[in-house]
Amino acid sequence: MSFLWEDKIRVVEPYTPGEQPQKNNVIKLNTNENPYGPSDEIKKIINNLSADDFRKYPDPTSESLVSELAAFHNVDKSRVFVGVGSDDVLAVSFLTFFNSDKPILFADITYSFYPVWADLFKVPYKVCKLDDDFRIKTEDYLTDNGGVIIANPNAPTGIYFDKSEIIKILEYNKSSIVIIDEAYIDFAEDGSSCIDLIDRYDNLLITRTFSKSRSLAGLRIGYAIGNEALIKYMNDVKYSFNSYTMNYAALTLGSAVIKDNDYFENVISKIKATRERFSQELQDRGFKVLPSSTNFVFACHEKYSAEEIFNAAKKKQIYFRFFKQSRIDNFLRITIGKDEEMDEVIRFLDSYIK
Amino acid sequence: MSFLWEDKIRVVEPYTPGEQPQKNNVIKLNTNENPYGPSDEIKKIINNLSADDFRKYPDPTSESLVSELAAFHNVDKSRVFVGVGSDDVLAVSFLTFFNSDKPILFADITYSFYPVWADLFKVPYKVCKLDDDFRIKTEDYLTDNGGVIIANPNAPTGIYFDKSEIIKILEYNKSSIVIIDEAYIDFAEDGSSCIDLIDRYDNLLITRTFSKSRSLAGLRIGYAIGNEALIKYMNDVKYSFNSYTMNYAALTLGSAVIKDNDYFENVISKIKATRERFSQELQDRGFKVLPSSTNFVFACHEKYSAEEIFNAAKKKQIYFRFFKQSRIDNFLRITIGKDEEMDEVIRFLDSYIK
Repeated sequence: MSFLWEDKIRVVEPYTPGEQPQKNNVIKLNTNENPYGPSDEIKKIINNLSADDFRKYPDPTSESLVSELAAFHNVDKSRVFVGVGSDDVLAVSFLTFFNSDKPILFADITYSFYPVWADLFKVPYKVCKLDDDFRIKTEDYLTDNGGVIIANPNAPTGIYFDKSEIIKILEYNKSSIVIIDEAYIDFAEDGSSCIDLIDRYDNLLITRTFSKSRSLAGLRIGYAIGNEALIKYMNDVKYSFNSYTMNYAALTLGSAVIKDNDYFENVISKIKATRERFSQELQDRGFKVLPSSTNFVFACHEKYSAEEIFNAAKKKQIYFRFFKQSRIDNFLRITIGKDEEMDEVIRFLDSYIK
Repeated sequence: MSFLWEDKIRVVEPYTPGEQPQKNNVIKLNTNENPYGPSDEIKKIINNLSADDFRKYPDPTSESLVSELAAFHNVDKSRVFVGVGSDDVLAVSFLTFFNSDKPILFADITYSFYPVWADLFKVPYKVCKLDDDFRIKTEDYLTDNGGVIIANPNAPTGIYFDKSEIIKILEYNKSSIVIIDEAYIDFAEDGSSCIDLIDRYDNLLITRTFSKSRSLAGLRIGYAIGNEALIKYMNDVKYSFNSYTMNYAALTLGSAVIKDNDYFENVISKIKATRERFSQELQDRGFKVLPSSTNFVFACHEKYSAEEIFNAAKKKQIYFRFFKQSRIDNFLRITIGKDEEMDEVIRFLDSYIK
């Protein structure tokens, strides 16, 4: 069927999010959620949300949330932007910062939303091939461009890219915006974030999310930190798209969770410990596991096909993520769940790999 | 200060939302919120939200909410799109449907976000002047264009545009998308919505919001209803911008509120009754009041300046909306609050207009 108005449509190939099975009793290790729920403190706040406050528009400036984030990261409030998950923050960033005829640069194997945003906003792009160990080659980014975006740690590989290399890229690209997508940085080593570089580089934007380390994927909060001029331009675009993006629940719970830092540190430690143990268990069973600085591992088996393991696991209600994409189509991305969930995965693998 | 990267920025003049004073004890009649909070039923659901469900990504398809809306409007689920307030829905609509070199058409006096979205996405537009009674002239829209958007009832005028005139516009514009923004339609007469026309016109999109009649501005829910092909194109764009826009609270409460229709009908009746009484009170005091089909009135006084009344009211903690815009810069837009709030407004006016 065709319509008389079809020539006026923006036709795009959308991003495909990981499956969200609506049934219970699944081991869901496909979207890098945090297996530990919000703290008891947060639960209390959830159950005391004021119904009457839903009647009014939320604060469009998200002042309470922005202030808590600014205090947490020890930056001025003018350097913080908040949005509906880091996807919203990144979409706004692409729209705000990538408006050049020159291509923006990102890796061939990275967050698969980058080319989707580029296509949506008609931003030209060039993919830079990771090396054979799935590492970024710095020199690929030392070339004229319309902008740079690097996920660090990278997804789905889990690999951390050294900060000294990012500095080289920032130094070269002073006339482009460089976005470092730090969705998973809380699972890397302390001090590996680039947030402390925003004073030195006015072209640097860091993006973050509450969906992984902060156990609040269902609340949809992401944020960006950068020079106040960058944040101002982003806010102008945000206010030109939707003034009130953060609902009352997100503002209230989001502000509280930042103050709840001990719980969060504890959860991260547990996940890192499980990750190390699980990585070893996989290696003991013939898997090659890339070094992970995230809450997932990216692994391939020397003999068994990733797609077949993926399908067999799904039949047992265990969900991994599999990307049918050149160079990584024999890898599985497995979120780190609770210890008992990973034990169940190991039992499944032991029965599959005889 | 200037930056080396500034040539790559999308520089826009953002929309300015109505003020959201964070203090209590104000009479807030500036953003057309509903003075009656959510029902007791909804309050119960709010206080029983499951904290653990915030850990997981929400359903990206918003199935529960979409199903309830489809059932309520008696349309197929494939004809419903949901977003973070109708601003989000409209932003996605502009991006999806207005991609022509020909100008889109909208009124000179209407929702002031339309030109902002057009500028953001570089959509050419032509404003069509309302007549001297602030009514739409149908013939202005019977001309070659890149799309049409009409707020009905219109804001800030509050005036309803007859459905038979919209049909003429739809008939003429079969090769453009025509958006009817029905944010305020629940305060107009029964049967005045254009939703029943979607079977006849595959180029018609209706947008709606939970922020006015449904008392949930703080939850951020809007939706669109139209031909399944339109909705599919919008969803492709939405999934190319942000897969998970609706958080767990919005999905859970949004679905429940649709079922809570008796409460909602009752609230609307009360607001309409207050509107009629208040309009009369204003007229008794020398105001000209445009006929309102919304939850606000648009009024100008024969002797006193709107801007001065606006400022004087604000000093008394009464917030109206004033637009410093040609043709309407002697009008006040006053949201219909509770009866006691409108009585307070009348007392203020009586003291001001001596």
